[in-house]
Amino acid sequence: MTTTDRAGIPTLPMPDLSPTFPGPFPTSPHADHIEQHLAQWLHRFPLIGPPNARRTLCNIVAHGVARTFPTADPDGLVLCADLFLWLAAFDDTHGEATAAGSPARLVRRIQGCIHLLSDGEPPGDADPFDEALQVLLVRLRTRATTAQYLRVTGSLRDVFFGILWEAHHLAEPEHVRMQSYLAIRPHTVFARTLIAMAEVVLRYELPEEARNSQAVRLPESAVCDLAGVLNDLGSYARESAKDVPNSLNLISLITREQNLEVPAAWAAASLLGEERAATARHGLDELAAGDSTPLAQHARALESIACSYVWHIAHARYRKV
Amino acid sequence: MTTTDRAGIPTLPMPDLSPTFPGPFPTSPHADHIEQHLAQWLHRFPLIGPPNARRTLCNIVAHGVARTFPTADPDGLVLCADLFLWLAAFDDTHGEATAAGSPARLVRRIQGCIHLLSDGEPPGDADPFDEALQVLLVRLRTRATTAQYLRVTGSLRDVFFGILWEAHHLAEPEHVRMQSYLAIRPHTVFARTLIAMAEVVLRYELPEEARNSQAVRLPESAVCDLAGVLNDLGSYARESAKDVPNSLNLISLITREQNLEVPAAWAAASLLGEERAATARHGLDELAAGDSTPLAQHARALESIACSYVWHIAHARYRKV
Repeated sequence: MTTTDRAGIPTLPMPDLSPTFPGPFPTSPHADHIEQHLAQWLHRFPLIGPPNARRTLCNIVAHGVARTFPTADPDGLVLCADLFLWLAAFDDTHGEATAAGSPARLVRRIQGCIHLLSDGEPPGDADPFDEALQVLLVRLRTRATTAQYLRVTGSLRDVFFGILWEAHHLAEPEHVRMQSYLAIRPHTVFARTLIAMAEVVLRYELPEEARNSQAVRLPESAVCDLAGVLNDLGSYARESAKDVPNSLNLISLITREQNLEVPAAWAAASLLGEERAATARHGLDELAAGDSTPLAQHARALESIACSYVWHIAHARYRKV
Repeated sequence: MTTTDRAGIPTLPMPDLSPTFPGPFPTSPHADHIEQHLAQWLHRFPLIGPPNARRTLCNIVAHGVARTFPTADPDGLVLCADLFLWLAAFDDTHGEATAAGSPARLVRRIQGCIHLLSDGEPPGDADPFDEALQVLLVRLRTRATTAQYLRVTGSLRDVFFGILWEAHHLAEPEHVRMQSYLAIRPHTVFARTLIAMAEVVLRYELPEEARNSQAVRLPESAVCDLAGVLNDLGSYARESAKDVPNSLNLISLITREQNLEVPAAWAAASLLGEERAATARHGLDELAAGDSTPLAQHARALESIACSYVWHIAHARYRKV
């Protein structure tokens, strides 16, 4: 697979995932229904202004979530899609470049969300993000077990921290070490949130002992890393084509840390993606081959989460110049 | 009760809590044992340098936790004391003025902690704070149920967010609205963490329905607010005596928002403390009078948490000039 050739950036090869996550990827029969629902959801909670951006985001989230959990029931899919859309819209609106201009303002914006996550009463001056989050948390609490709810809301706090972390480093990426970047990326690419949501959407529960085992943690980490690498490759290509500075991105970090030109850094990132995909593949096969039903369910969920990230970077959102 | 008279600041009256939390407050017979343990714990994990600060902190934490959970077993007390000491030392070392100088550095410092809270592998360059937190989380996981563990680790994330929030506003308190300040304070004064720890330390479990009821939430909020007000009164008196700017403190916020002199703002804060104490008292009596054993246990835990905050501001740590 290669990135689409276009003016200004060379065509660089995407990781070869044909041995590990070959596709075509199963998708839910409810994808179109989710997309229509998301459009209505954004009508109720206007999280995004421009109609074009709204349509693109509804489309990628609906069809992405349909590939993330292809066997899920409509209610579970819609809950997951609404949450994912909320996160993407929040990041687009309040994170990234906007946030870097005023981290203190971002901190104040996030405070209302943290207040809701910690069971605080909704503020008097709630905006659509607060209102939508509040509704999402009520729906999540209704569908999830207590531990599942706490795991998802813990993960959401980590996403907010990740967005804050990014805001502080966009302007000074020279302070970012690779180890830290790789540690934060599973949160900012929302992969950890999807993993926490898997049990809620697909209605299974991992035994605690298994959850904390290396047999589960290793493929989870590998899937998260793969998601981050793929998203960074897609974002780097898109942002470079728009001449947007790409300071906080795996490719840029590798060019800086290893003193490489872009094509070599791209190749290194691509190779990292292939390696993490291989680790994930191996771990998922092991989990699926065991005789534990929830572990096999978890392996299938992690697999389709990986597939949705492989799928998403070919979407128009990442081809837009 | 009045603050100790000393040069430079007038003697201002503390809230009158004799009708609501009159004292004397029960304390655990294990207080001295905890204090000795904490000294050893700081020897193993040198979180604080100056011997004087170390001794004072061990003393207030040991005797504070002994009043927070006077009936708890030694293991539960020691776990809670270690965690509370860790939080206080982290805030003293990395939060407040140090953090305001470089919020980005604080974000990087917190990242390692968030990584551990979200089950990440310990970093290669772990410092004593990382190492101690890692050990604490293992011990917490051993003693707590899954939901309890997730509730405490969720609360710890909120404390980190609160420390970050403070760091961004110490230099520009004019952006802080009272509502936001009151919403964040239960986290930064660690009261929410103590409430989450209560079930772990005292080994009871609130039914989920009760936890989300107003009958539980209202006295919890009132106890948290009382803790914040008391801590702010104590801190304001201490910091003013040392001529340290006190920009992010309830007294300062009231002087700014209501255009009052310090004595009038102090009186308003003090009155707020009395009001929140009365609300807490009423709610706790209602909970205790019901026929639910875990609710009565929770009421007793909230009561002794409130008492520990009433007790702590008379400690030498708050008298030090």
